[in-house]
Formats: sequence, C-alpha cells, structure tokens
Amino acid sequence: MNGDRQPQTRPINQRLKGDLPLTDAASAAAQIDSDATVLTSGFGSVGYPKRIPLALAESDRELSLTVVSSGNVGDEIDVSLVESGAIDRRFTYQSSAAARAATNRREIAFSDRNASSIGDDIQYGGLVDPDVAIVEAIAVGEDWFVPSTSIGQVPAFVEATDELLVEVNHRQPLEVQSLHDVYRPDAPPSRGPIPLTEPGDRIGTSAIGFDPEKLVGVVEADRADDTYSFREPTDDDLAIADNLGDFLAAELERSPAFEDEVHFQFGVGSLGNALMGELRSLEFGDRDVAYFGELIQDGLFDMLDAGELECASATALALTDEGQDRLFADVERYARDVVLRPTDVSNHPGLIDRFGVIGVNSAIEFDIYGNVNSTHVGGTRMINGVGGSGDFNRNALLTICALPSTHDDGEISRVIPMAFHVDHTEHDIDVFVTEQGVADVRGCSPIERAERIVDRCAHPSFETRLRDYLDDVRDQSAHIPHDIRRAAEWRD
Amino acid sequence: MNGDRQPQTRPINQRLKGDLPLTDAASAAAQIDSDATVLTSGFGSVGYPKRIPLALAESDRELSLTVVSSGNVGDEIDVSLVESGAIDRRFTYQSSAAARAATNRREIAFSDRNASSIGDDIQYGGLVDPDVAIVEAIAVGEDWFVPSTSIGQVPAFVEATDELLVEVNHRQPLEVQSLHDVYRPDAPPSRGPIPLTEPGDRIGTSAIGFDPEKLVGVVEADRADDTYSFREPTDDDLAIADNLGDFLAAELERSPAFEDEVHFQFGVGSLGNALMGELRSLEFGDRDVAYFGELIQDGLFDMLDAGELECASATALALTDEGQDRLFADVERYARDVVLRPTDVSNHPGLIDRFGVIGVNSAIEFDIYGNVNSTHVGGTRMINGVGGSGDFNRNALLTICALPSTHDDGEISRVIPMAFHVDHTEHDIDVFVTEQGVADVRGCSPIERAERIVDRCAHPSFETRLRDYLDDVRDQSAHIPHDIRRAAEWRD
Repeated sequence: MNGDRQPQTRPINQRLKGDLPLTDAASAAAQIDSDATVLTSGFGSVGYPKRIPLALAESDRELSLTVVSSGNVGDEIDVSLVESGAIDRRFTYQSSAAARAATNRREIAFSDRNASSIGDDIQYGGLVDPDVAIVEAIAVGEDWFVPSTSIGQVPAFVEATDELLVEVNHRQPLEVQSLHDVYRPDAPPSRGPIPLTEPGDRIGTSAIGFDPEKLVGVVEADRADDTYSFREPTDDDLAIADNLGDFLAAELERSPAFEDEVHFQFGVGSLGNALMGELRSLEFGDRDVAYFGELIQDGLFDMLDAGELECASATALALTDEGQDRLFADVERYARDVVLRPTDVSNHPGLIDRFGVIGVNSAIEFDIYGNVNSTHVGGTRMINGVGGSGDFNRNALLTICALPSTHDDGEISRVIPMAFHVDHTEHDIDVFVTEQGVADVRGCSPIERAERIVDRCAHPSFETRLRDYLDDVRDQSAHIPHDIRRAAEWRD
Repeated sequence: MNGDRQPQTRPINQRLKGDLPLTDAASAAAQIDSDATVLTSGFGSVGYPKRIPLALAESDRELSLTVVSSGNVGDEIDVSLVESGAIDRRFTYQSSAAARAATNRREIAFSDRNASSIGDDIQYGGLVDPDVAIVEAIAVGEDWFVPSTSIGQVPAFVEATDELLVEVNHRQPLEVQSLHDVYRPDAPPSRGPIPLTEPGDRIGTSAIGFDPEKLVGVVEADRADDTYSFREPTDDDLAIADNLGDFLAAELERSPAFEDEVHFQFGVGSLGNALMGELRSLEFGDRDVAYFGELIQDGLFDMLDAGELECASATALALTDEGQDRLFADVERYARDVVLRPTDVSNHPGLIDRFGVIGVNSAIEFDIYGNVNSTHVGGTRMINGVGGSGDFNRNALLTICALPSTHDDGEISRVIPMAFHVDHTEHDIDVFVTEQGVADVRGCSPIERAERIVDRCAHPSFETRLRDYLDDVRDQSAHIPHDIRRAAEWRD
C-alpha cells in the first residue's frame, strides 16, 4: 500500500523566490475593483488570506464584492469583511454568525453548491466571471506558490482568475509543503481517470503553478489561522460514539467489502472530532484503516501516532491550536501518512465510490422518513452551507447520519415529522445514529423507516408525539403519508 | 476518438451452448421459494425476464417475494406478478399503474435508490440477501450468458446471487450482442479507476460470466419486450425544445468546456424523446457530439443515421416497436456507435463528471427555490422511482430540468411554492426550462432563483398567485422565506 506514498523530495526553503511584485496589504486591496469577483483560498477555517481581506474591510471605499471560497474561512473574511458591508454576493460555504445574519437578512446573496463541484462551477460552469484570486501561501515564486494549511478548490480558482494576489504567511511552517498533493483533473468533457488507487497515494506536486502574467501582488503576512476549538465530548457525544461503535463492529463482521480495508470519513465539529477519537476503540483486527475525507481533525492524531491509521487524506487541517502545534512540531513525520489534496479530489464522487468510504456526518435534523436538513433551521433560516456533506452522503458505500436527538437543552427534537429543507434525500442515508440508538434503514420502505427512526432514534420526550403523528397519518393511502400543516407545527 | 470503439469479434451464433439445465417456466418458477429474494434483469422496460415471472404470477402458491430490478421492467412483472399479490417488497425503480397503486396502499414495501448504486447496494451494502437472479439472455453457456436489450445492474446481481435462472429469448436478435460492453468495477474499497476515456469506448465483453454452480435452470422464451410508445410531440414539447435549443446554442458559444466536444444525456419519456429529436436543429459546428446517458430513445437514431452523433452510450434501449425494428434491421452497423453498459458504468458519478455531461431531465414539479420533486405527487403519493435522474442531476457539468409548466390540461401548476418531496436539492439544478421560457439560476441566491423561476417558467395563469406568495413572504428575515401552511394549499 505504501508504494506511491513517499512525500516528494523537492523541498522549498525560501519564502519568496525570484522577481516578485511585493506590495503591502492596503496597496494590494486598492488594486481590487470595488465590484470585483474575488476568489479566495481557505477551507475548514484555515489557509485563507488574512491581511488583504482585512485591508479591504478597513478601507473607506464603497465595496460590493462577490466573494467565493470553496470552504469555511476565518473571521477576517466572514466577520470583518462581512460586517464592513463589502460583500454583496457569496459562494459557497459559510458559517460565521455575522455571515449567517447578513445572509438571513438577504443583504448577502448566498448561493450554495457542493464542495466537490465549486471549482468546476467557477472554471467551466459560468457561475461567476472571476477577476482576482487571493490565496494564502507558505512560499511563492514567479509562476508557482505552495498553499498553506488547506488546498480547497484553489487550483481551479487560479486557472479561472485573471489576476492573482498571494499572501505569504510566515506563521505557517514551510514544512507544511510536504503534506500537499496538488492534482487538478483535466478539463471536461474528456477528463482522464484520476490515477489515485489508494487513499494515501500521491499523484501531484506540492506547489500550484500559474501563468506568471496573472501575478499582480505578493503581500507578506504573519498571522495565525482562525483555528477550531472543540468542546469536551458531552454525555450525548459519548453515547452516540458508543452506538456508532456497536453498529460498525457488527457491520465490519457482516460485510465482505470491509474484510481487508476500511476507509472512513467524518464530518467536522465537536461531535465529529469525538467520533474520530472513538474510532480507536473499534476492533479492526488485521484490517488496514484509512481516512479519506474532507477535513482532518485532532481526533485522528492519536491513531496516527499509534500506527493504527494507514493514512489520512483531506483538503484541509481543521485543527485546534493544540492540534496544529502537534502537527507542526513534527510535520515531516506526519507527512508520511497525511495528504492534503484539492477538494475536487478529496471529495470527488468517483473516488468516494472507488474507496468504498464509510461516511459519518451530522446535520441539523432529520425526518421520520429519512430526509436530512443540514443547512436551514425550520427550512428558512440559513445556519451554514452544505459543504461536502452531500458529496459523502451521496457517494459513500455506507452513509451514516449521526447527531444528538435534541438541541437547546432537550427543548427541540432533531427528529421531526417532515424536513422543510432537504439537503440529503430519502435515497441517500443508510443509517441514523443518536444517543438513543441506531436505526439501520437500509432496504426499508418509508413507513418502515419511520417506525424504526421513531423507535430507535427519537428522544423519549418526543417519541410519543412523533408516534401519534405517524399513527394518525397511517390511514392515508399514500406511500409517504403526511399531514403538512401538523408537521409545520413542529417548527413553530 | 475511434481507437477503442471497434466491436469485439467473438460472435456467438448459438442460443444454447454446452450441457445446460433446460427446464420449462413453471418448473423454474416452482424452484423459487415462496418468500425468496429475486433479482431480475430489465431496465427501461426491456431485457427483463418474462416467462418465469408470468409462471410465478399464474401459480397458485402463496408468494411473498422481494423483487429487485435495477430499472423499469415490463407488465409481466410490474402488472401480472404485482396483481397476483406475490410481491411484498420491491426495489428500486417501478412505474406501472398497478405497482404504483399497491405501493401507495403500502401493500408493497418499496425502497428507492439511485440507479447507479443499486448494484453495490445489493452486492456489498447489505440491502437484501438475494436467493435467485432471473435474467433474460439472447444466448447462454455453462458459465456465461449474453444479456438482451438492457444490461442494468445484472453483472452485480449475478455476482451477488446464490442461484441463477436464465431465460433465453428467441425473439431478441443474436446480433444485439455486438452492442454490449460488460465491465463490472472492482470490489470496493480498492477499486481501480474505470478505464473509460471517451463515451463510446469499449472496455469489456459482450457476455456476463458466472460461477457455473449457480446455474439452476435455463428456460426458452419467445416473447417481445413491453416496448415504449411515445405520443406525438405536443405544442408544449416543441416550445420546450425551442427554449432549450436557444439556451444551449448560447451556452455552447459561452463555455470553453464545450469548444470541441459536447456530451448529452436526456431523461426518458415522450418529452425526452422529443428533445433528443430536436438536438439535430442545434448548430454544433465542428464539435463532436456524443450521448452518455442511461437510456437510448428513438429520437437519437436520426442523428446517428446522419453521422451527426459520434456515439451513444447507455444501459438500455428504451425504444418503440418501430425503433426496435430499425435497430434490429441493422444492429451490427449501429453497434459501431451504440454501446450498452452496466448501469454502474453508464450512470457512474465519476464518469458523468469525467465526460462533462449536459444532463436534461424532467420531473413532476419544481419549487420557486429550485428544489425538484420527481417521484411523489403532493409529497406523498408515489408515481415512479427516482431512477438515474439523481445520478445525472447531481454529477452533470450542466444540469437542466425541463418540463411543461402545468399538467392536467393546465389545471395544476408544476411550478409551486414548496416541493414537499425533494429528490434533487437546491444545490443541484442549474437551469429550468418550461414552454414559457428559461430560468438560468446559476449563481443565484434562493430569492433571486424564485424571482427568475416565477418570471420565466411559470404559466401565466399561475404567475400572479406565485408572485403574491413570494411578495408576502419576502418581509421575513430568512434566507429562504416560506409560509408552509400557505404553500400546502397548492397541493390540496
């Protein structure tokens, strides 16, 4: 399995190389048209440009920007720049309180796409006509740069843009380069197969090349990522992890697909981090275990350190400060097993299928028939973008939706009669897990799914009300019986 | 482009070869346990087994079968067998009136998955524990058979089953073998890339191999497929085709992705057939035009005959009697350009992406925010399975939803405030086309999508009511404003 996994030996040990258009953040920001379409690096709240967005936020120009990132970016963009009123239009993922509020007031026109496709959407799909890309790098030359702690859809963005601004961040260690595997699939409609045959393979480079004519400014920065902080696992988190563990143990026994190898993906967040950490307690026997996901969280490092995880592939490091310190202290050792890829590879539908991934993702809520809402509370108010959850929920071999059965201190059920915003359809999810139990709904008709979900996943304080709903609609002659007005009462 | 496209030269000219367990339909049916899980061939209402299902329907045993097909099958299964009360549980696609009624009465437990994944779901996903596969063939040997007019997920089904019954149908011409390209992807979780680099390439064989121990019976048949019949294009169909043509002409000009090659997919049905036929009027210039879809309909043959279509790849021939006659009269000539593949290849998410497909699919209805319902009227009553629409709507480079703005003689709007069953989410569809016009919603926020869809796609007799809805919810501070009770009035 290790054949293609040696990190490339082309170390770059100079942050700035060649004849570069060095400038300061304010001057770089001043070059950007007031109504420009700006593509930025950044995914999992790391590896995004910091100083130029801040300079834009602090300028006294009237701005009406379109800002496109492929994943979550930090406060410099989704708080400061948002609060300065500079952003009119925003793609694709966002989740800050400020961006959420502006989006729900519809002051920001937010358009949400799956993380795997936003690169193609920009480069080929006519989604926007980009003017400038601002990317964070750890090093830059006249026609290349090395991305920092995330890759995202930056290779596509760099190909699509007219102009390029690079922020070289001295705070990000140069050794991060050894994690990267930059490979951009060919242009459609005649793409070759992506030649990745194992989750940890390397098929690309550590740098992203570009047409040197595009480079209009290089700004130096020294500013940390806006890293994650995870709460300690709650009792619910631990109960969910236990239930998930029991289910997975039985499934590993049952399925011939997992006889020799198991490939996981976990959604980001405190629960996802706790679940990743709990993986260690599973009995994998002789199986090779690998991670082929979107984000690497702290929870995986213990397994990597213990040699229990063959490799971890993702598009960004969604780490705490402590996790970043742990990685940065020994990045070249970790780079033997940790690979960062562009999102159109990390989240590629065909690769998720190829590696038979077991995907474990959270959501806001799910309904009794198995439809999942992961973006809009009550069907109307945006909480966050869909990110890569659709890529994994649709294409994983085994798709698990894991979340607590309630929120707001038990006041509100996350198991509801009808989801009024559907991000993942009844055709997608195989298994639902809450702290109450596991509903394996594979092969179930809608009404069987409903019975199983209410029985095994709902919180006892909502179970009776859900069962009453189900019993009362059951006399309808309908495949998926519903009383929509009554279902709507659950969101009041 | 033609390098790998020569049909294989291993003609099979004998229907029955070797020492075969020949039997009659009634005896074969009698071998099947009364509560068996039966996998069948069949897709696009062709290539399904006919005599054994009829014998099951006609037997006086009490049957409680689970019947799994990967696509649409004919009346022998979804009418006769259904009406005999023999089917307790059914996967995945179905659309006959009888099956629909039984499903809505919940006498049949129907579980619906995407066409691309039902093979893996059966073989690896633990969806069912199959007992017997019944397949239609044009020829059979001791450890192989050649499928007939569809391939579907039969290679996966044959690998997953314990026992195999083959119906050799003398009515299907032996020359159909020259269309086939049977390739089953490796087992997950370490699949190699599928080595298909152009839509018309051939990478497999014309026969499906099997463990000879599985073969428990061979039945001879002489019975035609339950072929399609299409109505003449209506005025609405022609107006939709015109609108689609205008949009596509502009898009071919605009997008660098379609400079040299264009790859289409069209959904099945009278409208899809009319749209395929109208393709001819587009000015493709020097571009190579190919079809990479799920079903081949009559509408493509004129282009093939005129040499205007490089190739057509699908998993089944959804033809009228006339279309079948046209194909069968010259099947070896057509086989130079027409390829039938397993559904896990024809509909593979990674291949749809690789070939930058322009996907054009219909639905029951769509809502003002771009959510699409293609399976359940009013969110509750099943009309048909989701089929492969999700495979193409999610993974195509350009995703188009095309349908008339009303049904029931204009009484009911297909553009509604809220879809109460969502098969394709707001993240999926790029462009909506009705006879009224085209709403290109790429890059639009939900409220912008709503304005554009109401303005350009809704029928004039519903436009005011939709606009009132939108205007009245617009004062909500919400990304996707809605009044669910009022939206529910549209389904009463």
